[in-house]
Amino acid sequence: MRKLNFSSGPATLPEQVLRHAQGAIWDLDGSGIGILEHSHRGKEFGRVLERAEAGIREVAGIGDEYAVLFVTAGATHHFSMVPENFLGERETADYCHTGVWSGKAIEEARRVGTAHIACTSAPSFAAVPSALTFSATPRYVHYTSNETIYGTQWRTPPTAPAPLVCDASSDLFSRPLDLTGHALVYAGAQKNLGPSGISLVIARKDFIENGRRDLPPLAQYRTYAAEHSMHNTPNTFGIYVIAEVVAWIREQGGLAAMQVRNARKAQVLYDFLDHSKAWSGHAEPASRSLMNVTFRGATKDLEERMLAHAEARGLSGLRGHRSVGGLRASLYNAFPEDGVHELVKLLDDVEHGR
Amino acid sequence: MRKLNFSSGPATLPEQVLRHAQGAIWDLDGSGIGILEHSHRGKEFGRVLERAEAGIREVAGIGDEYAVLFVTAGATHHFSMVPENFLGERETADYCHTGVWSGKAIEEARRVGTAHIACTSAPSFAAVPSALTFSATPRYVHYTSNETIYGTQWRTPPTAPAPLVCDASSDLFSRPLDLTGHALVYAGAQKNLGPSGISLVIARKDFIENGRRDLPPLAQYRTYAAEHSMHNTPNTFGIYVIAEVVAWIREQGGLAAMQVRNARKAQVLYDFLDHSKAWSGHAEPASRSLMNVTFRGATKDLEERMLAHAEARGLSGLRGHRSVGGLRASLYNAFPEDGVHELVKLLDDVEHGR
Repeated sequence: MRKLNFSSGPATLPEQVLRHAQGAIWDLDGSGIGILEHSHRGKEFGRVLERAEAGIREVAGIGDEYAVLFVTAGATHHFSMVPENFLGERETADYCHTGVWSGKAIEEARRVGTAHIACTSAPSFAAVPSALTFSATPRYVHYTSNETIYGTQWRTPPTAPAPLVCDASSDLFSRPLDLTGHALVYAGAQKNLGPSGISLVIARKDFIENGRRDLPPLAQYRTYAAEHSMHNTPNTFGIYVIAEVVAWIREQGGLAAMQVRNARKAQVLYDFLDHSKAWSGHAEPASRSLMNVTFRGATKDLEERMLAHAEARGLSGLRGHRSVGGLRASLYNAFPEDGVHELVKLLDDVEHGR
Repeated sequence: MRKLNFSSGPATLPEQVLRHAQGAIWDLDGSGIGILEHSHRGKEFGRVLERAEAGIREVAGIGDEYAVLFVTAGATHHFSMVPENFLGERETADYCHTGVWSGKAIEEARRVGTAHIACTSAPSFAAVPSALTFSATPRYVHYTSNETIYGTQWRTPPTAPAPLVCDASSDLFSRPLDLTGHALVYAGAQKNLGPSGISLVIARKDFIENGRRDLPPLAQYRTYAAEHSMHNTPNTFGIYVIAEVVAWIREQGGLAAMQVRNARKAQVLYDFLDHSKAWSGHAEPASRSLMNVTFRGATKDLEERMLAHAEARGLSGLRGHRSVGGLRASLYNAFPEDGVHELVKLLDDVEHGR
């Protein structure tokens, strides 16, 4: 029996996608060759790549002014790739500092040019700051739409005097995508999109065209746009799984339906936490993430007891990130609604010594 | 029915590995969670990573002075990562120029410092040069152990006055690994090791420790060694498949058995080509690759007829690389011996109008 997987990423995927992947590993679409074994230059994989891009464009409503790119790397790679492409040595980019991941992105920007902190919620990182102070002429403004570790999320993108760059690793396609003002959105796939080892980039063509030209081909976003993510052999299996996930999202009613369901799932858990004497949420209500619910028990002992019971009941991945501790329930698109009710029951049972 | 897949990569994988992967996608080792969905920090994936590294070390006889690293990228990424780590702006590295891939590696080295061509087989690239001329103090000497596109292969590594760096993408683990003199060996996985989107690096710990320290963490080989390839989320599925492939290699008798079988398979095809009036091999006999047999028909028309017949008989992936044309049969570890006989029969039939 499959467990309820609350992991923050790699994370639970739709069972339909797993079933399709099992078949495709042996034989892709009746071609007589599995998806892991197909040449990336063959027509069969060509159709997979096309299906992935078309599905992404359709489900998220992405216009022709944006390129859709698959990069063989996680989001951490983009922390350095973004400033290397777009930030001059004497230029400034503005960064919203809302947690661990934006902190790492800021470090990488500082390796290249100047990073101005437009806002910060340090040290608690319990909220997304509402007041932003920009530098005089930022090259771009970077924010992390959802903070996986602290469990906060931007309700709407910040309003900024420069193109927005967004690390949307943990909430892309969990709700409708508003690209207004955005030059580039990147996301590691292993939350709502697919397996680890691949990232999706949605970027304005004119923006990436103006990036640096003296970097290695694979270090320029331009190359991925010009060569349809096929300058070298891409992560073909990752692209296949993303195509399947996007098809599943469409069948479920698209991103609007995802948002409704995700809001409902998170609400069940936040409501419980708000009324509990033993458990309390970390993030401030207005900044709460619908993807990663971070919380604590009244005592460390209670938390450990909960984790032991969780294991016994087949609930997995509830321990908080090693850098902050506590507890965390990740409720990505594919996480089933029933699972949230099972978690609430578990928390209630442990609170009352059942 | 599965086809005979002669693709140069991504390429055919052992059927046992595909069957195991199908199971693991639904449920890894009875854990109740699939391999795509397991946290990379969890104990289940920890065991996979350990199994992959231990298997690689055992099957290839790799000592403790070498680190075994998994990098989320293809071999092309290492074309630039190697000089960025190890070549100073005013330093020289020596490169053996034996085809398309080494040509690309040379371009990337020149972006960083000086690349001296120690030997070249341009423009035909039909042989591995036997005479090498080194620069005064090369930082390292780079060679491509097997040329996938032209179908040549080094029988033994070159003897060099500096640490060897080898792109072994298309023949790693196809024969016993002789690491003598090698500082670093890298290989994209999608030939003999696993799926695309991941590469394996075997590198002397002291060599990578002396690389540049001012690069982003993921751009330093040191980081992968220090953090067990887990600085960020690795390609977890790719690592799983590599572990399975290595287990399969061990069950088959290890690298020595692989070499015997690969030599036998290639011999069947080369013998046929040598005695045929209609078909002829590209590479000079002493430099022939056991992995990629490149050949031509007496006429373009004959080649096209062969490809049409191949498709009808379920033989796939025989067209040569788009940059050189002609024909190519890739015979990696997992390619079945029977398949070579079927190809020979096909070539003979087409030659004789059957």
